[in-house]
Amino acid sequence: MENSMKDLVIIGSGPAGLSAAVYAQRAMLDQVVIEKGFSGGQIVTTEQVDNYLGLYGENGYDLAMRFKDHADQLGVPFLEAEVTQITDSGDHKEVHLEGGEVLTAKAVILATGANHKPLGVPGETEFSGAGVSYCATCDGAFFRNRTVAVVGGGDVALEDALYLSKLCEKVYLIHRRDELRGAKLLQQRVFDAENIEFLGSSEITQITGQGMVEQITVADKKSGTARELAVSGVFIAVGMEPQNALVQGLVALDDAGYIIAGEDCRTSVPGIYAVGDIRTKQLRQVVTAVADGAVAVSSLEQDLLEQDRKTVI
Amino acid sequence: MENSMKDLVIIGSGPAGLSAAVYAQRAMLDQVVIEKGFSGGQIVTTEQVDNYLGLYGENGYDLAMRFKDHADQLGVPFLEAEVTQITDSGDHKEVHLEGGEVLTAKAVILATGANHKPLGVPGETEFSGAGVSYCATCDGAFFRNRTVAVVGGGDVALEDALYLSKLCEKVYLIHRRDELRGAKLLQQRVFDAENIEFLGSSEITQITGQGMVEQITVADKKSGTARELAVSGVFIAVGMEPQNALVQGLVALDDAGYIIAGEDCRTSVPGIYAVGDIRTKQLRQVVTAVADGAVAVSSLEQDLLEQDRKTVI
Repeated sequence: MENSMKDLVIIGSGPAGLSAAVYAQRAMLDQVVIEKGFSGGQIVTTEQVDNYLGLYGENGYDLAMRFKDHADQLGVPFLEAEVTQITDSGDHKEVHLEGGEVLTAKAVILATGANHKPLGVPGETEFSGAGVSYCATCDGAFFRNRTVAVVGGGDVALEDALYLSKLCEKVYLIHRRDELRGAKLLQQRVFDAENIEFLGSSEITQITGQGMVEQITVADKKSGTARELAVSGVFIAVGMEPQNALVQGLVALDDAGYIIAGEDCRTSVPGIYAVGDIRTKQLRQVVTAVADGAVAVSSLEQDLLEQDRKTVI
Repeated sequence: MENSMKDLVIIGSGPAGLSAAVYAQRAMLDQVVIEKGFSGGQIVTTEQVDNYLGLYGENGYDLAMRFKDHADQLGVPFLEAEVTQITDSGDHKEVHLEGGEVLTAKAVILATGANHKPLGVPGETEFSGAGVSYCATCDGAFFRNRTVAVVGGGDVALEDALYLSKLCEKVYLIHRRDELRGAKLLQQRVFDAENIEFLGSSEITQITGQGMVEQITVADKKSGTARELAVSGVFIAVGMEPQNALVQGLVALDDAGYIIAGEDCRTSVPGIYAVGDIRTKQLRQVVTAVADGAVAVSSLEQDLLEQDRKTVI
């Protein structure tokens, strides 16, 4: 099957991909957004998003629907498909779909996101959004004056514990190793905080409750004993998994697997842009993802103009 | 009057300042947002904002109210005041207010924005919003099948002229120089457009009409003659003026007067951050302003932590 060359293929339809689609549509680019399943990205399963300016207290699912609706109202074309491979042929890219179809485009925007690594214990999935969270900055405020647990030993876990210690009555910091991995300063501050209790060599084996998280079972790996702790929230900070499978060996990644791209969202390959959680950045939030979408289209328009200029000359 | 030290003073309450306030409030920072008059920034006077993801087709004023309401719901403290000076005393900053009051804070976020440069001709202020506009994308639709003038010679002016040429019967592009400054490709398109007439070495000297713009007087600088043109709209695209009066000589500015700051929003002075249109950036949009607010607070939290560490050692 012959495909005409598109201006743009966007892969992924979380906030970053949808914002890119909105900007591309308004720029009259010939585009298609490829989504694997459901639009909206991580927020779809978020209980409440309180920090997307202008939509205070919006349920994550509703916010995702608003985002999708915005793109729909502008007439953005969506294609439900699974991308199997992306190839770079210089001034155009091929996006291979499961089933054999190949889309050709001048540019590709990667908006595949990153997933929080799950802990993999009973109750985790069940209570996701009902006490189990992967983002202290996002959800901490819902646990004011409550007792919570943070799982992990790296910088993010320590920062989360410190952040939560200001809001919560008590914070358990649970790490499978004896020693924390995070920055010494953060460790010092964790140890100084009166309401943070560090449980080393420990693992959560179960999260339980009636509708909401009420209890965790914590196994002490040294003594071989287990105990139950009453908590209202469990913040899991055991790392992120950037969804980079499609671009390994194609664009430059950092050590953690994120696509190396600055604020302009340009990757190491001209014509390929990375937006949202998949790119190297300081703060992974809905607002920064949405900004990326806009900026990537601006970069892309500049680059297409430049390319036209070269073709003309 | 003695003031206790705050964590943060935010100056300006457009989308960037309000987003910073929302993030700071959720991080439980002791803050105050200083606004001169009305919250919301430039969008307050925008007819319709179509590219803030999730709120398609929102009236600019309503969007601004939503933003302010979000901050209000979180209990962000606002202070209506005019800042006269900011001084840097290393680990704290003093924000001087008209009337003599001085606020002391560990950090300052500058969200003072940028204004469209006025042309400075008689009639411009009088007909602002009555035929005189600074945003073709925003207001072009009101001039369908009419004749309009665009003033300027850079990319924005050329883009505006091209955009309006699709809606309007005729577009005069008026530039004080003989040659346009904008991208060659845009110039080519402008010259190819049948309904755009380029008037080089020309200046508008007067905008007149009965209640609405009806006529402009255009002086030809080479011949020294002047003529009157019947137009319904005047789109002024002669650049932006970053509102940097408070920080001249305090933080590093680029040649155009924007505060030099990267994606992390840190300026040349530790503890002072710049967000939104006032900072150096590729794309000045509501979404990028809102992202800045979040990132600046993240940078600030990192920096406060680092500062605490130094104090302890």
